[in-house]
Amino acid sequence: MEERLMRLGTLSTHSFKAHLDRVRLQTSRQTERLWIEYPEAVAIIPMISDHEILLVRQWRYAAGEETLEIPAGKTDYGESPEEAASRELMEETGYSADTLKLLTRYFPAYGYSNEIINLFAARGLTRKGDITAIDEISKVEILSSDELFRLVMEGQIMDAKTIIAASLLKAGILKSD
Amino acid sequence: MEERLMRLGTLSTHSFKAHLDRVRLQTSRQTERLWIEYPEAVAIIPMISDHEILLVRQWRYAAGEETLEIPAGKTDYGESPEEAASRELMEETGYSADTLKLLTRYFPAYGYSNEIINLFAARGLTRKGDITAIDEISKVEILSSDELFRLVMEGQIMDAKTIIAASLLKAGILKSD
Repeated sequence: MEERLMRLGTLSTHSFKAHLDRVRLQTSRQTERLWIEYPEAVAIIPMISDHEILLVRQWRYAAGEETLEIPAGKTDYGESPEEAASRELMEETGYSADTLKLLTRYFPAYGYSNEIINLFAARGLTRKGDITAIDEISKVEILSSDELFRLVMEGQIMDAKTIIAASLLKAGILKSD
Repeated sequence: MEERLMRLGTLSTHSFKAHLDRVRLQTSRQTERLWIEYPEAVAIIPMISDHEILLVRQWRYAAGEETLEIPAGKTDYGESPEEAASRELMEETGYSADTLKLLTRYFPAYGYSNEIINLFAARGLTRKGDITAIDEISKVEILSSDELFRLVMEGQIMDAKTIIAASLLKAGILKSD
């Protein structure tokens, strides 16, 4: 258990915040904790078949590069993770899904963020329109699970949630019944 | 490509920072980006055998709970990822390793952090002493890969790097030659 003693500062955007806190550690020593307060988030593994998935190309400001990732985003206010997953899938790929199955919920950066990602497998995909998240996404691509895992192992895909998706595919966890 | 127009604010600890920037998006629209500037980091999968690994129990302030994770930490100034992995393994578990193999390098939180984690498999483990990172770690535990993967799928382990480790173990990627 760590106890917050004082809030030293906060930076805010319209959708999340960073806080700097003075805290007391389990050993009674005091230190500072800088952490991100983040809304619940979702990521989607869009299964075109048991061995092919959709990925999106996008620019990542913090990393300073273009990436290939599974679709993902924050929940909007009042929205369930399932609703957010449907919306983000449509906005970022133009596809809708017949079923969304929650695979796992996890913290991507335990050390400095309270973000939780709800990871879904999406099946029964139908193309309904174009990408609308054009501020973020430049292109949608279809990759086989073998190709995806190869890009991970070669270091060409460096995104944690996409590495988790590739590893679950490789482990045979996502096969339909 | 996104272009930084102005730095609006920064919060700092002794080891990393949060910045709020005004940026111009690819579509020319302007927005704000809040992001963490973080040193290179390491995580270690300590392989007791092909089917057993070491995990550490620790308190996570941002998440407000105790967790079970693979050992991990930041590189110190001037330290290579391999050196940091050896040091963190020793500090957090009391074990040293004969070999450290780099499995992958990835971004845990592309959306708001430039942190890169170097993920290593450690083999030839020998207990050399006690945990010295007592501000962070309360206990070391040995888990089988089946038990680890079960805890992930049941939602009892929610740490991204530990989920990646469990999935790579499950996929048979970490078997010794």
